[in-house]
Amino acid sequence: MSIQSVAIIGLGLLGGSIGLAVQDRASDITTTGYDADADVRGKAAERGLVGTVCTSVSDAVAEADLVILCVPVGAMGSAAAEIAGHLKPGAIISDVGSSKQSVLEDLSAALPGLTVIPAHPVAGTEQSGPEAGFATLFENRWCILTPPDGADEASVEALADFWRTLGSKIEIMDAEHHDLVLAVTSHIPHLIAYTIVGTASDLEDVTRSEVIKYSAGGFRDFTRIAASDPTMWRDVFLQNRSAVLEMLGRFTEDLTALQRAIRSGDGETLHELFSRTRAIRRGIIEEGQDDPSPDFGRGH
Amino acid sequence: MSIQSVAIIGLGLLGGSIGLAVQDRASDITTTGYDADADVRGKAAERGLVGTVCTSVSDAVAEADLVILCVPVGAMGSAAAEIAGHLKPGAIISDVGSSKQSVLEDLSAALPGLTVIPAHPVAGTEQSGPEAGFATLFENRWCILTPPDGADEASVEALADFWRTLGSKIEIMDAEHHDLVLAVTSHIPHLIAYTIVGTASDLEDVTRSEVIKYSAGGFRDFTRIAASDPTMWRDVFLQNRSAVLEMLGRFTEDLTALQRAIRSGDGETLHELFSRTRAIRRGIIEEGQDDPSPDFGRGH
Repeated sequence: MSIQSVAIIGLGLLGGSIGLAVQDRASDITTTGYDADADVRGKAAERGLVGTVCTSVSDAVAEADLVILCVPVGAMGSAAAEIAGHLKPGAIISDVGSSKQSVLEDLSAALPGLTVIPAHPVAGTEQSGPEAGFATLFENRWCILTPPDGADEASVEALADFWRTLGSKIEIMDAEHHDLVLAVTSHIPHLIAYTIVGTASDLEDVTRSEVIKYSAGGFRDFTRIAASDPTMWRDVFLQNRSAVLEMLGRFTEDLTALQRAIRSGDGETLHELFSRTRAIRRGIIEEGQDDPSPDFGRGH
Repeated sequence: MSIQSVAIIGLGLLGGSIGLAVQDRASDITTTGYDADADVRGKAAERGLVGTVCTSVSDAVAEADLVILCVPVGAMGSAAAEIAGHLKPGAIISDVGSSKQSVLEDLSAALPGLTVIPAHPVAGTEQSGPEAGFATLFENRWCILTPPDGADEASVEALADFWRTLGSKIEIMDAEHHDLVLAVTSHIPHLIAYTIVGTASDLEDVTRSEVIKYSAGGFRDFTRIAASDPTMWRDVFLQNRSAVLEMLGRFTEDLTALQRAIRSGDGETLHELFSRTRAIRRGIIEEGQDDPSPDFGRGH
């Protein structure tokens, strides 16, 4: 089977980037889009994020071989309920959410008997909204598909092909494992970043102006992540609660051990860890998952 | 008074960058340098980090109006002891260390009666060693001076002028306050980054390869900081112990509150914090302390 038309529901950073990437790299595929916010629809039309911005979700999905829900993971169930009954027979329904067990459950419940194949392109920036998307967002990034047991293989392969067309590399895993892996590589880092930025802005003995002025010492890196979309991230933590709490427990244990090392003046423990962590950075650079330039290549 | 010659002790990222910046922006100032490691001295000479690489620390400092110690903060006392007795009368002795109370104590003890004015340029990258330095490292970055009570005002002003010549903006504060501010803006962010990278590399149910592949979800940002020099950072945590433990306590309290919000499904608390933290990012961009481009301007 081949995907000749795609409907994108939700025209923010991810939805907009998919629309631009399809038009850029697979111009034979028709794109339609819808967003519940009329203002977003207007901006999407201005930027040409998709071929046709529809004013109803039913119009957007009516002819689509593939429907991609690009809404916060807490809104997946209601978005799926809205498209139910308007879909083309045989259409694949997918998404871009950061937690996959909850999405699989919500979509399966709202669309019984239909072809639901959740997906998660591991890509993004701290920006959000219809102005934030760009066509190359998915290049050389992994897209994880989490098809349910017994999913139609041809449909899984068609979805994989679609994402490869946008420049992604494909991995298939079960939703539960996805949620554990992403808790480590994405959700806990965001939670920690939000926390330290909150801590720093609430101090009484260090002013906010001082925090900003001297942020080049490391703090500013965390503020980038902590500028991410609040609704998206609230939903991720609520939907992937158990994996997040599990990984947070391990992080806290490790932090407590370091705290004890600092208190007791145990430099050896500190030095041993600080040496070990360099290897992971090297692995990320070698795999092409980050810029090798010092300081992310920031201008100096 | 005016500084006509500078000796740089320790020719890593910071020392090398000072040498290059002086040659670039104040070529009338003579630069000498020394490093305890002969291999580093060889590389420093190859790259021309300073005008003259000396084979003894006494030669390096003999004619210097300003001596800058660019060694890990745990090595400041012994570095100061080595230059004592070889200094030009009236020379200013300064440093670039990330903790200032311990440095002020160590330098004052080793160099009684001399002009000690500790300094901390809040600038750096995750790289280290004589190959890592570059002339523009200090441009538009803050350099904090922490002169002791009763320090010679003309010397403080001469040191401030020197740093302004390298492109820095100057702030003067007492060493204790510096250590508290930097604990928040630099030391705790590094400690957290080292911890989460360590946690992620020690999991049994998520492989190291998975951590690397899906690091674009946020984790990779932390690996940059966690690739910083292990000896430098071990020393910072040991030397600035009390401020680090104080700030770590506040961070942990805040993290525990978020953990409780996630466990109890309190989306409102999460959303409120995640909205608030965006303001700090905006402040940092407006102050020119980070790149305004999405994702630090990383190539996509």
